[in-house]
Formats: sequence, C-alpha cells, structure tokens
Amino acid sequence: MTMQTLLDAITTALGDVPRPVPLHEPYFAGQEWTYVKECLDTGWVSSVGSYVDLFEQKLAKKCGVKHAISVVNGTAALQVMLRLVGVRAGDEVLMPALTFIATANAVSHCNAIPHFVECEKSTLAIDGKKLSDYLEKIAHIKDGDLYNKETGCRIAALVPVHIFGHPADMDALQQVADQYGLPLVADAAESLGSLYKGKPVESYGLCSAVSFNGNKIMTTGGGGAILTNSSDLAAKAKHLTTTAKQPHKWEFVHDEIGYNYRMPNINAAMGCAQLEQLDDFLLAKRKIVDAYSRAFDGVNEASFHKEPDYAHSNYWLNAIVLHDVNERDSTLAALNQAGYICRPIWRLMHRMAMYETCPRMDLSISEEMEARVINIPSSVKHGL
Amino acid sequence: MTMQTLLDAITTALGDVPRPVPLHEPYFAGQEWTYVKECLDTGWVSSVGSYVDLFEQKLAKKCGVKHAISVVNGTAALQVMLRLVGVRAGDEVLMPALTFIATANAVSHCNAIPHFVECEKSTLAIDGKKLSDYLEKIAHIKDGDLYNKETGCRIAALVPVHIFGHPADMDALQQVADQYGLPLVADAAESLGSLYKGKPVESYGLCSAVSFNGNKIMTTGGGGAILTNSSDLAAKAKHLTTTAKQPHKWEFVHDEIGYNYRMPNINAAMGCAQLEQLDDFLLAKRKIVDAYSRAFDGVNEASFHKEPDYAHSNYWLNAIVLHDVNERDSTLAALNQAGYICRPIWRLMHRMAMYETCPRMDLSISEEMEARVINIPSSVKHGL
Repeated sequence: MTMQTLLDAITTALGDVPRPVPLHEPYFAGQEWTYVKECLDTGWVSSVGSYVDLFEQKLAKKCGVKHAISVVNGTAALQVMLRLVGVRAGDEVLMPALTFIATANAVSHCNAIPHFVECEKSTLAIDGKKLSDYLEKIAHIKDGDLYNKETGCRIAALVPVHIFGHPADMDALQQVADQYGLPLVADAAESLGSLYKGKPVESYGLCSAVSFNGNKIMTTGGGGAILTNSSDLAAKAKHLTTTAKQPHKWEFVHDEIGYNYRMPNINAAMGCAQLEQLDDFLLAKRKIVDAYSRAFDGVNEASFHKEPDYAHSNYWLNAIVLHDVNERDSTLAALNQAGYICRPIWRLMHRMAMYETCPRMDLSISEEMEARVINIPSSVKHGL
Repeated sequence: MTMQTLLDAITTALGDVPRPVPLHEPYFAGQEWTYVKECLDTGWVSSVGSYVDLFEQKLAKKCGVKHAISVVNGTAALQVMLRLVGVRAGDEVLMPALTFIATANAVSHCNAIPHFVECEKSTLAIDGKKLSDYLEKIAHIKDGDLYNKETGCRIAALVPVHIFGHPADMDALQQVADQYGLPLVADAAESLGSLYKGKPVESYGLCSAVSFNGNKIMTTGGGGAILTNSSDLAAKAKHLTTTAKQPHKWEFVHDEIGYNYRMPNINAAMGCAQLEQLDDFLLAKRKIVDAYSRAFDGVNEASFHKEPDYAHSNYWLNAIVLHDVNERDSTLAALNQAGYICRPIWRLMHRMAMYETCPRMDLSISEEMEARVINIPSSVKHGL
C-alpha cells in the first residue's frame, strides 16, 4: 500500500519525533539572544546600528560576492534587483512557471510581465536547452535588445530560481543569456549555502536575491538581500532601498523614487547570529538527506529528490517525486493526517488567475512535476 | 544675538544632558526583552506566532478603530491603503507638498501621480479652505468621479498628513472630501497617540497609515500599520499584504498580485511592549513641550510650534518656527555645532527632481514654512 510505505519511510528517516512535525522550523542555538539584547540595550533597533553593516559584510563573504545589501524580504530584493538590471514597465521577464508566487509578483511590482518558461525534471529549475530553442523561434534582437516577436514586448531579463536550494545549471543559462544579450539574475531565495561547481551559487550571474523568511535555512524574522560583485549595482541598490536620499548633514533631498526597504538593525542582529550557525545547519541538512535517501531507497512509489551532479545543495526543503501522477492529493491527505506536515510544490504560475494570460512556452514537464512533487519535513533540528 | 538666544532656550529646556543630543531616540523600559526572548525561545520569529495578532488588537483599541493590519513599514501601509481605496495607475492623489518623501513615494508605487496642495501655517497640514477653492477651479465631477480639468486625470484620493503628530483639521477636510466624492485617507505615520476633538486621530477618515520606524514615538525596529473601521477594507488589506494567498491546508493558490508586507512576529513582540508604554511616552512628551514652551516664551527670534486648539497632539517631533526666513541654515549649523542634532523640515516635494513636474496649487505658505521650521531634540527620555 503506497501510503503506508511512504509513511514508513518518513518515520524511519526522522525517527521518533513528536507530531505534528512541521515542514520547516527555524533553529536558534547561537548568539541570537546576545545580539538582539544588545540592540535593545543600546536602543539601536531600527535603521541606525552596526548589525546591518556587519550582516552585509559576513553575508557577502559567505556567498562569495563583493557586496550584499540587506532588505525587508526576498520579494523586495527581487523587485529592486530587476529594476537595477534595467527591467522597465511593459518588459517581459523570463522566469519559471514552477516557483513560489514571489518571483512573479516581483516582476509585476516592476510593472513588467512574467514570461513563463519550462523546467528540467532533474533540478526543477529552468531548462537552458529548451529555453534556447524557444527563444530561437519566438524572439529577435533589434538594436541590441531582445524582443518577443509575438507580443512585440522587450524581453529584459532571465531569472532562474534555485528550487528547494538545488542550483539551476548556471553555466548553461549564462550561455543563453549571453547569446541573447540578457542580464542573468537569480532568485536565490531558497539556496543560501548551496554550491554550483564548487562555488557559492550566488556568485554566478549579475546579481542574486536571497530570503531570510522564517521558513528558510536561516532567518532574520523577515528579510532578504541582494548579492552582487558589481560595485555600481550595489551602490544603486543601497541608495534605492533607503529612500534614495542624498547624503547630507541635515537636508532631506531624495533624487529618485526610492523604497523604504532597509532591514531593521534588530533583524540584522538575528541574521548575524544565524549566519554564524549556517555551516552547522548545512551539515544537519546533509544528515537528514542521508536518512531520507536510505529510507526511500527501494521504495517503488516515490523517489527522494536529489541534487544534480554539478552541485552541492543546501537541501533547504526536501522533496519526494511520486511515480503516479494521480496520487498526490490522497498522499498529502494521508501524510498530513499522520502528523507529517507536507505540501505539494507550488501551483504553477500560469494557473493563477492574474497570470493566466502571460506569455509562456510549452510547460509539460512543469505540469507533470506539479502533479508529482511533495515536500516533506526538513527542519534543521532533525539532523542535529 | 539670535543663535545664542536659541541655544540658551534649548539648553534651558533640556537641562544638563550629554551632547550630542539626538533628534529622536527610541526608549525601551518595558517588556521588550521578555517578549522578544519568547519569540526566540519558541522559534516564532517570522510569520507564525501570536504577537502579530496581539499587536494588531492592542493597536486597534488604542487608535479607536475596529481593525489594525501590521506591515513592514509606514510606506507599505500607505501604498496598500491607497490601492484599497481605489487609487489606480494614472490617477492623481491630493497630498501636501510639505511632508516626508514616503507620502509621495507611496503614491508613485501605486503608479499614481502626486498632486501637491497647500498647508496651513498653524498646523502645517493641508488647508481645507484653500483646497476647496482650488478644486472648485480646476476639477469637475463626471459620472461620480472627480477629474482634473487641466491634466484630464482622475483625482482619486485626499491624503492629509498629521505633521510632527499635530492632527490636520479632519472635519474641514472630510467636508471637502464629501463635496468632491473623494476617499479621505490619512498619513498618520507621525501621530500615534494624538487626539482630534477628543478622539484618536486615526479614527477619522476611511483609513490611516501609521509608522513604527525607529525615529517614531514608539518603534518595532521597522514597521507600520493600516487602521480602519471597515471590516471589508481590513480583510482586503490583510489578504493583499500576505501575498493574497487563499486559505488552504496545503495548496498555494494566490488570487491577485499581492505583497510580502507582513510584519515579522519578533517586530510585533517589540511593538506589544512599546504600546504598553505609549501613555508614559505621551506624558513624557508633554513635559518636554512644557519645558520648551517656557524656554521659548519671550524669545523674539522664534516661536515654539504648538498643537491646534482642537487637538491634543503626541508632539512626536518638536519644532520652532524662525521669524526670519533667511536664518535657517546658519541656525542649523550653529545648533548642530553646539551638539543639538537639529533638522530643517523636509524639502518640499515639488522641489525634488522626480516630482517637479507634478500638478500643484499655489504653495506660498509651504515655501515660507520650509524656510522657517527647524526640528529640535524630542526624545522621550528628556521628559522622564
């Protein structure tokens, strides 16, 4: 019986833990108290304080980039990143149909239009080969810009998402980006700590946007960051996310329409403490993965979703891929009923009312995987 | 000598305090650490946790409204509030030229156009009489909507700002709003705790947006809220600020283009503790006001800026009004040099590059007051 086999595998992997077992809980075992209390004791909780700078420095180093700009959340990071690489109102942005809603919303917040592209089965991230073939057919370059022949709109950026922490094939995607003159900027909300060909995945492409929401591998309560090697983009990102105010001892002069997106110091303090534990969290994740891999080895009804060969994933959110496309909802019901909080992968973007008329390529693989992928409990504590 | 007189008055009011004296510091003397520690100990720091609900309940009660929806900051509160009352791309929004940049940016983030209106000398807030005369001339109603005859654009909302915490004359503005069929929604970022004709100022108009930035009378690190008596608007605000996700046990279905604007639980925890102290903060502010009033009594060079007769202000930020329009910058230099961190009022919106072509009425009073108003140190601690 399918359900029992899957239930047994999860139980074997996680051991005897109290239920319900959340999908992903944060973990605090470092200097969170100390740093947060210091903020309260000094009164530096908001935009004044040293933890924001410190967090940005440590984060940039960890991600192998020159600059990190912390913001209120991952959606804000994505929106600002897109605007900075030149996405304008009415442009199209190539992004996966298979992602969390934030990727599409960030595009919309730039008054741009999501253009949905297909994923690979192995990584669930954008399929570079299929994308290249598709652009060959539907796009043409004019005066250095890429245009959609069908809609007439400019195509302004390519945004892979590192789904569940597993890196997209950045070299393949960079090739497509180069061929068509597109900025490659990544939605790295889920992949902090992941390596692509031995280097932090955030060090690829022009910029990346990460998230520190409470369900991520590490958290600042709410938060995100833009990561880049470009000093120019970094300076612009800092300016734009802090109301575009010109430096002056007392005058309030703002030189463009900016955002109030800065991360408060108290959240950055938490981030500093969490970042110090990230390596431990990554090791814990590996132990969970080993346990799941063993437990699902030989299970016929589903496969445990693994990192691609070229990557060392943070395995932020574990997933199984059902072999039968018709069993997802009954499986979800049974697993949740048994006290394992499990979720399907996100509903595909082009199946949401507000995005159903957006341009898209053939999405058969995305549609198949939407019907087969289930996320299973992944909290760091299970690997400690 | 002007400078010396002003310096003496500030020194007399504040007493012997270490310099530099900040313009406005937050104050933490309540349960901040207890509540924040509870978040860290339970792991409820982000979107899961009970402090968000508790904070919203306490805040609504304090502001005399049925509903409060907490968000990441005051700008986000303003943007969502404008969208909810029907502001659409291309609309004009009536707002003061004399305000912080966030008011205009929130309008821009709705893809709408700020339309700058004149202030009263007494409150520095919108002058209802002048606005009414102006609309009489430049606007006309067609099919129930108000249009700017000069630009052809719809005028979609009226947004007073309670400058430095002093309530705008809401009855007068409501009359104008009613006459022209405009929703009246307030930028109450600065006025938490202020009363208009004996009731919380946030209970007037259709909704208000407040801020809990670190420089406000109370803080959540970064944060804001939408306040309203309308259950319909409140439900829509909560939906829109939490990615417009439909409630479901596991499905990710979002039914419109939403925002990731929710306030993290750890920031709401701080907010609960700060809100418990708000009455003490308000009393402290009154003591500072009494001291400044006495100290500036008889000073010929400047007047201390006082609340209007109809209001009981929170006196968030104290201000003096110079009698000579040419002495502002030299006065600012001298006060800052002496260790009192002082600021001019914000540069007028229509003098910023990105807003200089926006529609506006005669702004002579705003321009005069821009040249005369200086904010002086106002931290709660000076009144304790």
